[in-house]
Amino acid sequence: RHNAAKYTQPFCEFLTKNPTVFHAVQAIKDELEEAGFTAMSERNEWKLEAGKSYYVSRNGSALIAFTVGGQYKSGNGAAILAGHVDALTAKLKPVSQVPNKAGYVQLGVAQYAGAPNTTWWDRDLGIGGRVLIKEGDKIVTKLVKLDWPIARIPTLAPHFGAAANGPFNPETQMVPIIGLEDTSSSATPIQTAEPFSNPSLIGQGSNYGASFVSTQPPRLVKAIGNALGLRMDTYSSIVNWELELFDTQPATVGGLDKEFIFAGRIDDKLCSWAAVQALIESQDQSKDSSIIKVAALFDDEEIGSLLRQGARGNFLPQTLERAVCSLAGSAPGPDLMGRVYANSFLVSSDVTHAVNPNFLNVYLENHAPHLNTGLVVSADSNGHMTTDAVSTAVLTRCADTVGAKLQVFQIRNDSRSGGTVGPMLSSMTGIRAIDAGIPQLSMHSIRATTGSLDPGLGVICFMGFLNAFEKVDMEFRH
Amino acid sequence: RHNAAKYTQPFCEFLTKNPTVFHAVQAIKDELEEAGFTAMSERNEWKLEAGKSYYVSRNGSALIAFTVGGQYKSGNGAAILAGHVDALTAKLKPVSQVPNKAGYVQLGVAQYAGAPNTTWWDRDLGIGGRVLIKEGDKIVTKLVKLDWPIARIPTLAPHFGAAANGPFNPETQMVPIIGLEDTSSSATPIQTAEPFSNPSLIGQGSNYGASFVSTQPPRLVKAIGNALGLRMDTYSSIVNWELELFDTQPATVGGLDKEFIFAGRIDDKLCSWAAVQALIESQDQSKDSSIIKVAALFDDEEIGSLLRQGARGNFLPQTLERAVCSLAGSAPGPDLMGRVYANSFLVSSDVTHAVNPNFLNVYLENHAPHLNTGLVVSADSNGHMTTDAVSTAVLTRCADTVGAKLQVFQIRNDSRSGGTVGPMLSSMTGIRAIDAGIPQLSMHSIRATTGSLDPGLGVICFMGFLNAFEKVDMEFRH
Amino acid sequence: RHNAAKYTQPFCEFLTKNPTVFHAVQAIKDELEEAGFTAMSERNEWKLEAGKSYYVSRNGSALIAFTVGGQYKSGNGAAILAGHVDALTAKLKPVSQVPNKAGYVQLGVAQYAGAPNTTWWDRDLGIGGRVLIKEGDKIVTKLVKLDWPIARIPTLAPHFGAAANGPFNPETQMVPIIGLEDTSSSATPIQTAEPFSNPSLIGQGSNYGASFVSTQPPRLVKAIGNALGLRMDTYSSIVNWELELFDTQPATVGGLDKEFIFAGRIDDKLCSWAAVQALIESQDQSKDSSIIKVAALFDDEEIGSLLRQGARGNFLPQTLERAVCSLAGSAPGPDLMGRVYANSFLVSSDVTHAVNPNFLNVYLENHAPHLNTGLVVSADSNGHMTTDAVSTAVLTRCADTVGAKLQVFQIRNDSRSGGTVGPMLSSMTGIRAIDAGIPQLSMHSIRATTGSLDPGLGVICFMGFLNAFEKVDMEFRH
Repeated sequence: RHNAAKYTQPFCEFLTKNPTVFHAVQAIKDELEEAGFTAMSERNEWKLEAGKSYYVSRNGSALIAFTVGGQYKSGNGAAILAGHVDALTAKLKPVSQVPNKAGYVQLGVAQYAGAPNTTWWDRDLGIGGRVLIKEGDKIVTKLVKLDWPIARIPTLAPHFGAAANGPFNPETQMVPIIGLEDTSSSATPIQTAEPFSNPSLIGQGSNYGASFVSTQPPRLVKAIGNALGLRMDTYSSIVNWELELFDTQPATVGGLDKEFIFAGRIDDKLCSWAAVQALIESQDQSKDSSIIKVAALFDDEEIGSLLRQGARGNFLPQTLERAVCSLAGSAPGPDLMGRVYANSFLVSSDVTHAVNPNFLNVYLENHAPHLNTGLVVSADSNGHMTTDAVSTAVLTRCADTVGAKLQVFQIRNDSRSGGTVGPMLSSMTGIRAIDAGIPQLSMHSIRATTGSLDPGLGVICFMGFLNAFEKVDMEFRH
Repeated sequence: RHNAAKYTQPFCEFLTKNPTVFHAVQAIKDELEEAGFTAMSERNEWKLEAGKSYYVSRNGSALIAFTVGGQYKSGNGAAILAGHVDALTAKLKPVSQVPNKAGYVQLGVAQYAGAPNTTWWDRDLGIGGRVLIKEGDKIVTKLVKLDWPIARIPTLAPHFGAAANGPFNPETQMVPIIGLEDTSSSATPIQTAEPFSNPSLIGQGSNYGASFVSTQPPRLVKAIGNALGLRMDTYSSIVNWELELFDTQPATVGGLDKEFIFAGRIDDKLCSWAAVQALIESQDQSKDSSIIKVAALFDDEEIGSLLRQGARGNFLPQTLERAVCSLAGSAPGPDLMGRVYANSFLVSSDVTHAVNPNFLNVYLENHAPHLNTGLVVSADSNGHMTTDAVSTAVLTRCADTVGAKLQVFQIRNDSRSGGTVGPMLSSMTGIRAIDAGIPQLSMHSIRATTGSLDPGLGVICFMGFLNAFEKVDMEFRH
Repeated sequence: RHNAAKYTQPFCEFLTKNPTVFHAVQAIKDELEEAGFTAMSERNEWKLEAGKSYYVSRNGSALIAFTVGGQYKSGNGAAILAGHVDALTAKLKPVSQVPNKAGYVQLGVAQYAGAPNTTWWDRDLGIGGRVLIKEGDKIVTKLVKLDWPIARIPTLAPHFGAAANGPFNPETQMVPIIGLEDTSSSATPIQTAEPFSNPSLIGQGSNYGASFVSTQPPRLVKAIGNALGLRMDTYSSIVNWELELFDTQPATVGGLDKEFIFAGRIDDKLCSWAAVQALIESQDQSKDSSIIKVAALFDDEEIGSLLRQGARGNFLPQTLERAVCSLAGSAPGPDLMGRVYANSFLVSSDVTHAVNPNFLNVYLENHAPHLNTGLVVSADSNGHMTTDAVSTAVLTRCADTVGAKLQVFQIRNDSRSGGTVGPMLSSMTGIRAIDAGIPQLSMHSIRATTGSLDPGLGVICFMGFLNAFEKVDMEFRH
């Protein structure tokens, strides 16, 4: 408890500074390198040494960091923390240029896991993400973040009667506005062909026809360009980009005794961030440990994970196999991996539902967690979670070593439960697993609530897991 | 037919003695070891020899047994029988303690694939499963089977008029009773706070507050403890457990000429068990066979299979690879595996619907199977089954070698069909496959009916498959 | 463009000659062998040499072909093209014999992904597929194609008033006719037992009861037999078969400037075929390339892919690993595969919806592709596609090298999109991927339309990808 509080502020800053999945991953990379982690590329051969720390990332939106124990012998297992770093958001369409209407400059966006939803009306939305730029004969990725409110999805005043209270068509009535058409310069309107009369080309550079940026709103291109320090004549060096809208309101502490954190995109950066902190801070005890400690962060969980940088990708098993093999000298067969997996343990950590005092009748007694209390093990009898007895015992033992309290969550028999990355990862690797996460209120809202100590309690419990797993696993081995 | 009868009794005993998925797997382990199978651990290195038999299990609820042919040369395939060993059941909640009512000790249970359902009223339900115990610095798994009826979901006597004939709410009116509050010791009632007023902690041992067992019904803890030979003061060495309710009524033969088997949990132990018997009895012909014969039993099929011990886990491919590799001497590449898979064949065996005489109008003519006749190939034109012409031909040829009859099942064009593990396994391994199962009446009832010769007819047909596959496959190889 | 046209004709012949998924795969095999590809059997050991080309097939309905670059060093990646070769069709029931009516011989069929539908009336339907035949002690698969129209679902002439305009019951009014009851010989009627009173056996050869062919329409057996060169007394050597109805109308170019191709079963043979051509023609540039070029064709996509020969099978990863390993000399560890995957790129290619001029209001402006223009990148914000910024940039760069134009497709926010094999494959391998397909009109019709240059434009763009990927990837490597 007393030393959980020191993680509150850093977590808030982390959220505020990294509004998109790309920024979040980038920030974690930087933090890992400060902590002495070596960047590994999936393309190159890996030469790993026991006692060192490394990380590898995929698509800039998923990342796996690990520390090899000093006494690591091949066949030993890994203690893995897994989470996801994506959040509900609204993405720009491939051609986000839409014709101006009634003097407004608008932006074409598409839904990501149902956002924008009803909590997105009248929020100050920023734009950010990654931009691919051609520099000489290289195409480099640069992150861009226009860090002032730009876009907004305006409601209609209730005075207009029925039209004002939905339901709203997400294609035609939830188009964000990003600016006003300036009336002075008489820019010539493009000769407008009839709609659909042209093939909808992807703008693609040099020798003929329009470039990529010519298919985007010019003022946005200008803003992005300048943010990247490009001059007007080199905008077209932008080869492509992935931008999303985000709430620009900073994460902050709240409540009478500041015992709450109010932030956007808590779901599931909260656990991912805590996992990374635990990994970083358990380095100094790795010299004399003989396992690999892993923190795995995935993308696309909110849309089912069926992408390579998602949990149903082979990112984790692949990374482990490469790490194990480069530590094992010669080529290991599946036998080695089988042993590594059998000696590993996975804590699949997605946020869980803290009890909501205004809706008590949908919770199951004795399975409704509180904030600022501790990690929550969440169970399910229809296999939507990996939690079982063994994995609960393992985690409990680890939690004991640092005196961390654990809570439990499960739904009532007369309702249905969500899913997590756990079942995907552990069915793919066969690694023993548990679903344990940090509690939060109002999931899937653009701006949610967690306990101010919860990030810290998470870190502490994860450290307990990373440091004590080796010893604890002895108890399950025979 | 004449020698199908000798499997009737053993099958019944198997069902009776192994009411939970853990016991079923354990019993099969023991039977395999008697039959000279060597237990392999997924943690250790595997050294396998041709002509020997091995088995490996996962989570104690899934198991793969295999016999390596004497003449096995690396690259040869495997003849695989696959089924699932889980059944509809009711599982204990993580905190299964519920407040006593009217002097009864009750138990909190959750639904597993829709059970308990209307056929669960007033059945004698045992409790069993596995328990994790701390012995010294070890945590061991022990199976526990309170092999007398403990739980019951009692009907209300019709004397009470309308209240006695439902519909019933699964959360509040189908709560099993497991005992009586004894009046002697004045156990102090907990200062009852209001519900939800406490965080629902996981009990976790030593230095403060309650242990795991303190979050369970004490009497159940005691019963489990004693069943495990623990003394009262060492109950708290129980770290965790997974228990489920099961009908304690033993499986038995029935019908005038004993041509029926009445049993619970037929869906799909019937096929899994038959597969194991076929494997065990085809040992003596394995000296001069050059393939691997495999029986794979999975968990969690009734809830979609997405767990490591389910068919969508990597259990099967992993096991095959490790087996093949340790037989191939040095490290084999996927090349070897490709050949192995290509030379393998999978019979995915889930039970099918026998025709019901009181409801004839829901069946498709010429596609409605009878009991005690033979295995049923179940086909579907929308890919909910793996059955195709080749796999039907292969199985037909194998069945011929032992003179086993095959039937066919398919639904009408104006209705929908269920799923099986076949498509999951064969898509994961690429192995040729067929869906062929043993027919039964009243599927998903807590106690169903199959033919008394059907287990044997299954075993015989499976042996035909295991023994003749090698030869039959010749006919398809060129 | 100028050289896209030369692919038009070959594509049409391909479609015409190969009406079933089995024929399509067979034809591609033959073409690969002419092009110097060596057939690999999943059963045998693979010895691969750099600079050579190989292919492997599964179930006769899925296939993967690849060329190893001359300068291939282990660890280098693969450039992969993936598609599916199955189409909507009507399959014969396991027992396809139905009683004659009004002098016509009829056939029992079942629906495959909703076909036969309204576009199937009065089409000339052939019957074809594969037949398993016992030759001596072998069971061989022979493809059979009764390549003249046999079956037909006849409309009622409008002269008969109301009875002539639907809706029609799929079980009773859409029964195809396949012949006329000949009046001379008095064909014997089936002995009528009470319906359901006999077990519905699978006919199974020799020693007792009826054979397989006795459960099928005799005249169809005769026609199949003769087509296979069997004499009347050896029909019963047919062990089983998988037959489907197909439109016998040949694929052809159309439109004024032959800029259309009209064909059945375009969905998704179009992309698969183009992928194979690109692979074949990029051979001559493989001496000095250091990557593996792959074309992967899957089955069962229209019914969810969950079969071994489907994309959710392990066919692709398996093949890659076997190839990489047999090239890497000794046993490679996952490290090697990791690097291979990290250096690979997947173009998942399923057909997309070309804009339909008569129904413009269901398309999204600027995301509605045209025919004969170029490959279509199809994006989706809910992860039903693998397309993202990087993969778009990669493909764009590759397309530039051959001057191929790319289009983009996305659905409106107020409707739902279909799925493809992309997410399944790239999540299984972790390979960077994009969903880019060739546009077509009226998907799921028995006879659809694509551009006549689209096959060629596909081939060219695929070649651009296969040949330029190596170079382009440099730009993304640092």
